[in-house]
Amino acid sequence: MLEKITHLNELFDIYGQLLTTKQKRIFELYYHEDLSLGEIAEEEEISRQAVYDTLKRVAHLLENYERVLQIQKQKKENYELIRKMELAIEKKDFNGIKGLLEILKENMR
Amino acid sequence: MLEKITHLNELFDIYGQLLTTKQKRIFELYYHEDLSLGEIAEEEEISRQAVYDTLKRVAHLLENYERVLQIQKQKKENYELIRKMELAIEKKDFNGIKGLLEILKENMR
Repeated sequence: MLEKITHLNELFDIYGQLLTTKQKRIFELYYHEDLSLGEIAEEEEISRQAVYDTLKRVAHLLENYERVLQIQKQKKENYELIRKMELAIEKKDFNGIKGLLEILKENMR
Repeated sequence: MLEKITHLNELFDIYGQLLTTKQKRIFELYYHEDLSLGEIAEEEEISRQAVYDTLKRVAHLLENYERVLQIQKQKKENYELIRKMELAIEKKDFNGIKGLLEILKENMR
């Protein structure tokens, strides 16, 4: 569950600007401010069901952006490659660095 | 003009999957198949004005995705960094490689 929340938050960091102001606000109240569905409903003057539906819809939108654009996936892969390159640099392993840079280049096409 | 078309096509490659099927088709007929507005209107059985509006709307959507997500901009920056790293590797310039990797890492946050 915590893993799923972390995942959603990472996607929100990347794709949040593509959501509407209202979608963003409800997401933040729930996931960042830790308000309950009922509390958000009261604050936004909408039904509890509407809050629930919005959260569902936002999760679906964020997952869909990632499915199509894969920014998060690529970020993680590239970060792993950079970490390996740092190790290769420490060892002054030129061929290692070269090979990793080749993969990174391919990954970024 | 050619520069603008190349730019739009690059954005389409990145964000095209976020468009509707119809938006994608009209973009492709115009920019890839080189059909005129009139020809597309006939093929799609819509008005010439509707074709024009769709192309305008698609350009706006693509530019907006890039404004928010900046995938293309980051791609170009990272590609430039990788090119510089390749030169630094050729020269066996360890400090150069390290510095560039640091920038690349920062860029990918």
